[in-house]
Amino acid sequence: METVIIGSGNVAYHLAKAFTQNGIAIKQIFGRNEEALKTISEENNIPYSTQNLADADFYLICVSDSAVEEISKIIDKKDCLVAHTSGSLPKEILVGEYRKASFYPLQTFSKPKDLDYSQIPFFTEAENDADQKFLKSIALRISENVMVTDYEKRKYVHLTAVFSCNFVNHLFARAKEVSDSQNIPFGFFIPLIDETVRKIHYLDPKDAQTGPAVRNDGRVLQLHEKLITNEEHLKLYKALNESIMKMYGLK
Amino acid sequence: METVIIGSGNVAYHLAKAFTQNGIAIKQIFGRNEEALKTISEENNIPYSTQNLADADFYLICVSDSAVEEISKIIDKKDCLVAHTSGSLPKEILVGEYRKASFYPLQTFSKPKDLDYSQIPFFTEAENDADQKFLKSIALRISENVMVTDYEKRKYVHLTAVFSCNFVNHLFARAKEVSDSQNIPFGFFIPLIDETVRKIHYLDPKDAQTGPAVRNDGRVLQLHEKLITNEEHLKLYKALNESIMKMYGLK
Repeated sequence: METVIIGSGNVAYHLAKAFTQNGIAIKQIFGRNEEALKTISEENNIPYSTQNLADADFYLICVSDSAVEEISKIIDKKDCLVAHTSGSLPKEILVGEYRKASFYPLQTFSKPKDLDYSQIPFFTEAENDADQKFLKSIALRISENVMVTDYEKRKYVHLTAVFSCNFVNHLFARAKEVSDSQNIPFGFFIPLIDETVRKIHYLDPKDAQTGPAVRNDGRVLQLHEKLITNEEHLKLYKALNESIMKMYGLK
Repeated sequence: METVIIGSGNVAYHLAKAFTQNGIAIKQIFGRNEEALKTISEENNIPYSTQNLADADFYLICVSDSAVEEISKIIDKKDCLVAHTSGSLPKEILVGEYRKASFYPLQTFSKPKDLDYSQIPFFTEAENDADQKFLKSIALRISENVMVTDYEKRKYVHLTAVFSCNFVNHLFARAKEVSDSQNIPFGFFIPLIDETVRKIHYLDPKDAQTGPAVRNDGRVLQLHEKLITNEEHLKLYKALNESIMKMYGLK
């Protein structure tokens, strides 16, 4: 199956690398941003183009959610498979007469960093068994964690990721605002954060909970509420403590 | 300075180990729970007692916040230094005629796991320079990160820890409820979580934010809000997205 990657952002960058490292040849990388395409092209020895989409059997669309529908229209071929990489779009968003699929890598991609691709779970969906088998075989060359997942289920995968990645990062950002306000280096909190995450490698997070809310420590909760002057911090503080107390039947 | 640790919980367990490993002799470990004291005693070769508190120059109280005041009364000696290990109590909570101090290790302690003590920041406070110097010297034998911090500042250290550790773990627990509800193994999300944390080792979390809220993706936000049936999840979902949007001027 001749393969073309469409896109030049972080997902395209890392999937091109993951494919190449695992012996899956890419015929072309196609996109708008020539600078970014050049980098991917040079690092992985893949031809690129901003103008002429190569003929292929499999097109993998790695662009932002809002651009998937539009870019899918440029593939005016019937006998090929087209997959997008979004966690929150149905495969039917793709506009064309080709066979449609979804190939969702569960990871947060930043361009410049090395990633261990073998650890990335892939969630795949296709119209027929042959395509499903093909997508699964590709994913399995990269990673051990592959799950066939329809759109309904994939939405929940994405939602879980929002809670455990996007929201978690936001708490780090809010925490840093607190420590910055007192000139306490945020770096001091990194070992604590590392250990918090290390724990859930072997403990159910529900069993790993610590802090004033889970021990129903009204004194500390009140002390913190008096301490917090930032309105947004106070709202988050109350919402999260209330959720913790509800989870453990304390409220 | 002859040193006694009071307490037999996770903090006592790990500080006894950290002290011993770094050549700081402990004269006795004192507490109520004989089983737990025995473990600490055997692992570190420290005498223990549940009855007779040994005479010492430095007592380190490692018990829960609510027990600090009561336990501090058993030290009926003047010429000694007594420190507690709480992030949210003033040193004045200690009741006695001795010199009072605080020795706060910033970490989340679970008993059975090995920890890299050299990574733990210590926040210390004492009544006079000599005691301050002594506490700092002890902390510096264990770790590179030591900061002299009065009670006012220590409250903010603790608050930052609540945001970046306690609340983060709760989001993991809520995320797991979402994935469990769809029989998606929570283990699939561990690489994503690891990478989320790896990023803030070199990026300001504010610059590392991803997800629907920061890209103002109304379609996904609405899709998720319709998807969520658990009331507590929906409250958290809305509160965190609102906070993200406020941080980036999107609301």
